[in-house]
Amino acid sequence: MCRWLAYSGSPIRLEELLVKRERSLIDQSLHARLGATTTNGDGFGVGWYEQGEPPRVYRSIHPAWNDRNLRELAAGISSPLFFAHIRASTGTAIQETNTHPFRYGKWLWMHNGLIREFSRVKRELVLAVDDSLFPSIEGTTDSETMFYLALTFGLEADPVTSVERMVGFVEETGKRHGVELPIQMTIATTDGKTVWAFRYSSEGDSRSLYFSTRMDDLKALYPESEELAGLSDETRVVVSEPLGDLPGAWNEVPESHVGIVQPGTDELLPFKPRQDH
Amino acid sequence: MCRWLAYSGSPIRLEELLVKRERSLIDQSLHARLGATTTNGDGFGVGWYEQGEPPRVYRSIHPAWNDRNLRELAAGISSPLFFAHIRASTGTAIQETNTHPFRYGKWLWMHNGLIREFSRVKRELVLAVDDSLFPSIEGTTDSETMFYLALTFGLEADPVTSVERMVGFVEETGKRHGVELPIQMTIATTDGKTVWAFRYSSEGDSRSLYFSTRMDDLKALYPESEELAGLSDETRVVVSEPLGDLPGAWNEVPESHVGIVQPGTDELLPFKPRQDH
Amino acid sequence: MCRWLAYSGSPIRLEELLVKRERSLIDQSLHARLGATTTNGDGFGVGWYEQGEPPRVYRSIHPAWNDRNLRELAAGISSPLFFAHIRASTGTAIQETNTHPFRYGKWLWMHNGLIREFSRVKRELVLAVDDSLFPSIEGTTDSETMFYLALTFGLEADPVTSVERMVGFVEETGKRHGVELPIQMTIATTDGKTVWAFRYSSEGDSRSLYFSTRMDDLKALYPESEELAGLSDETRVVVSEPLGDLPGAWNEVPESHVGIVQPGTDELLPFKPRQDH
Amino acid sequence: MCRWLAYSGSPIRLEELLVKRERSLIDQSLHARLGATTTNGDGFGVGWYEQGEPPRVYRSIHPAWNDRNLRELAAGISSPLFFAHIRASTGTAIQETNTHPFRYGKWLWMHNGLIREFSRVKRELVLAVDDSLFPSIEGTTDSETMFYLALTFGLEADPVTSVERMVGFVEETGKRHGVELPIQMTIATTDGKTVWAFRYSSEGDSRSLYFSTRMDDLKALYPESEELAGLSDETRVVVSEPLGDLPGAWNEVPESHVGIVQPGTDELLPFKPRQDH
Repeated sequence: MCRWLAYSGSPIRLEELLVKRERSLIDQSLHARLGATTTNGDGFGVGWYEQGEPPRVYRSIHPAWNDRNLRELAAGISSPLFFAHIRASTGTAIQETNTHPFRYGKWLWMHNGLIREFSRVKRELVLAVDDSLFPSIEGTTDSETMFYLALTFGLEADPVTSVERMVGFVEETGKRHGVELPIQMTIATTDGKTVWAFRYSSEGDSRSLYFSTRMDDLKALYPESEELAGLSDETRVVVSEPLGDLPGAWNEVPESHVGIVQPGTDELLPFKPRQDH
Repeated sequence: MCRWLAYSGSPIRLEELLVKRERSLIDQSLHARLGATTTNGDGFGVGWYEQGEPPRVYRSIHPAWNDRNLRELAAGISSPLFFAHIRASTGTAIQETNTHPFRYGKWLWMHNGLIREFSRVKRELVLAVDDSLFPSIEGTTDSETMFYLALTFGLEADPVTSVERMVGFVEETGKRHGVELPIQMTIATTDGKTVWAFRYSSEGDSRSLYFSTRMDDLKALYPESEELAGLSDETRVVVSEPLGDLPGAWNEVPESHVGIVQPGTDELLPFKPRQDH
Repeated sequence: MCRWLAYSGSPIRLEELLVKRERSLIDQSLHARLGATTTNGDGFGVGWYEQGEPPRVYRSIHPAWNDRNLRELAAGISSPLFFAHIRASTGTAIQETNTHPFRYGKWLWMHNGLIREFSRVKRELVLAVDDSLFPSIEGTTDSETMFYLALTFGLEADPVTSVERMVGFVEETGKRHGVELPIQMTIATTDGKTVWAFRYSSEGDSRSLYFSTRMDDLKALYPESEELAGLSDETRVVVSEPLGDLPGAWNEVPESHVGIVQPGTDELLPFKPRQDH
Repeated sequence: MCRWLAYSGSPIRLEELLVKRERSLIDQSLHARLGATTTNGDGFGVGWYEQGEPPRVYRSIHPAWNDRNLRELAAGISSPLFFAHIRASTGTAIQETNTHPFRYGKWLWMHNGLIREFSRVKRELVLAVDDSLFPSIEGTTDSETMFYLALTFGLEADPVTSVERMVGFVEETGKRHGVELPIQMTIATTDGKTVWAFRYSSEGDSRSLYFSTRMDDLKALYPESEELAGLSDETRVVVSEPLGDLPGAWNEVPESHVGIVQPGTDELLPFKPRQDH
């Protein structure tokens, strides 16, 4: 099981949420809090935006807790919007090109979950990727395939609809190959301004996904942090698993929903796979 | 430009040809002998057979000259048939799954050269790979795609014909996309008993390929080697570039030919792309 | 906390004990069995002997469970005596030269535990290493320092006494620097014929150490293994933590003892630090 | 032979001098310009300062030309003072802790050259490092040892004198061990404000070292660069080998001299080893 974090709001040093806290993402990756989960030692990636530039990506196949370069960067880089992902492979190779977040133009994408029986359906899924996008695929994961399918189905114009089409297509293809429950996912994607966070699975029992409700709560969570004290009220953190132990700090995204973090009011919409791809 | 070496004959420690000699394959990778060539620092792989077992593969993205584990293994492993390859990427990512030799069942495959404008034709080539083989593709290189196309076209039953079909298909596909000279290659493949070594390019000006003529010559090349002294007369080395400076030790494989190293008499046959795929 | 395994007996493929079993060493490193322990993802090493040759060593900073080359080697290499070690760093850098087992000439050495406040005493300990041995130190760990101190104090001539001297010196040095409990260790060392396994700590509460009692037990543990079925009765496995769940298969080495696995009768002797260094 | 570059002046993206140019430092590392030099594929490091913070360091053992993370960082980071170093090992292990620049507090240090017969004198040199500094040594190179000796001899208070003492001590120690020409070096060090660049060797025939004379020259060298066009006249580049082919752009630092790049007028002073350590 992978873990991920999406941050949007006042510029903050990456280390504040990735490294420093007792319950930072890296700490989570070392000490899984629930007995059933395995270690997340199969690679780490972070993607960040600065001042209207295309996103930068740092990806490594070392376990995050061992990566000195990551600590240096997380201490040196401030960003108003960043993604971080810790991988636990579901079978594909451990290599940088299989490490999240994936990037296409100004878009980032990361995923926790899997396409079941991926090796049986991969060929069909990959061949549905648009001709012009195909050469940009660099790795071999189900997660990256989902990204390129969403791009093919119009991610840049209408993210929610394109992901609904992608999921519809993956489910249809899987079922045609006899896979009963083809997809399990929480996904975050962004264009550098808005963050979309999806929670869905064919079985209606999806991996967890949480929003930080209000900045007040996050500040209460880390009262010692001077950086957090200055964060705007629009600042949001979306995570696959809660950081820290403070009750009330996190709202669970309901099954089959997509949360949208954007300037102004955030949105929470129902999510439903579409067959019109 | 990559470099490779195929060895077939009396069991020998890998280090004899990979590490020890002043003109070993690793030494070649550090000090290109001809000014035009660049450094081969983009990964290294070795595949070897022992006693009728499936081939083992060691692949690394460290430069070969820095890889301590490689030196340990090359000192510890003896084999009657092994492949070694030093990579200089023509654009695809530096990762173990893109490192030669590639393996499928008992087969190994390695390549020097490229499919020109690979990103334009990749989708069409990959689409032609057999459904049952598709999930075994792990990397993103032109070289591995050629391997799976050859497997699709019957490598296991008739290696020469299948490679002729593969090349015919790559050339046809490239030309349909406006690529004038679609392919440049020297390739070695083996089933653990016979080695096939191909030299071909669309322009009829292929990268170099050499056979060690007779064991006598190789022994003269390294008179100090006790191991070489005991090698059988059937022992052969096939290389992308000659090892050592001894005149007369190496025979060049002619343009558009395939050499077959096998028990009994070796063969040298003309190679001609086929359209009957 | 590191984990290690020493094997001595009938030649066996490394994968039998490192990879294959549900409770293999690699499996242990992924899923710690007792809640308090952290993940062992800070590097992996294996050292093995073949036919009277000097030991070979394969060391990697990738987590063992991700290392494809390790799986290839473990499948390809048979050995009558090998060491394997999975590292959980106690602070020093994650790099191959800090990965166990360490090698000097025909000797191998691996350690679980630590020298407390190592950075305070390191200079003094390192400067006690013999002049002729000093240049062979490649890494920066307490474990390698212990090895070179033992070599300085006569490991090659009298292993038990030299390790007693080493521990005495480390304790004396630590105490002079105000460290109350200077050392915690289980150590295995071998010359390729005999294996010495030490259990000691300043606090008299040492990390665990187990011997496989009799080959009968091990065979009962893995009845499906054809390879194990053929193992000689002298075959022994020494481990930091038991493999498998079979009651009675393992004997704990008592506090402050050293076990000696050798041709003929094994020995179990009391271990007592010495001040006569 | 290593290569290095020190930049001081108007804030600039690292990629401008490390990646982009046809004769960037990375390009140099791939295609040595003079036949005698070998490839610089043994690791890469960059250290940079931002807004009065402690320096950050990114170090990798991948060849610089393959390191995607480096390209991302070099595109994302602007700095008024940075060091970059490409390593060609003279024997010590390829690992991050042996990769330049080295850091201590606010200081950076990088070196091209070697201490001859280092393994013979290492113990004595390391023994002279101050007790309080000793635990900070992380690697095993001659270069890092020189850094800690200079720190011991007062680098933070008087850089030129401390390096003269360090060299005097290394020469004296080497000669006592029968090494005729103990040291060969170009060194750059900085506290984040001033850069000191040393050129010295026992044989009086030191590796090359160049200053960019005036910003006018550098701008002429890269007329297409908008970023360079805006650089202040105090901007300087110090390099082990000239970048680009423009005649007149570079001034060679004479034998046994130290150049000091600082706010106001730069200085060029004679350098002479001292025995008063």
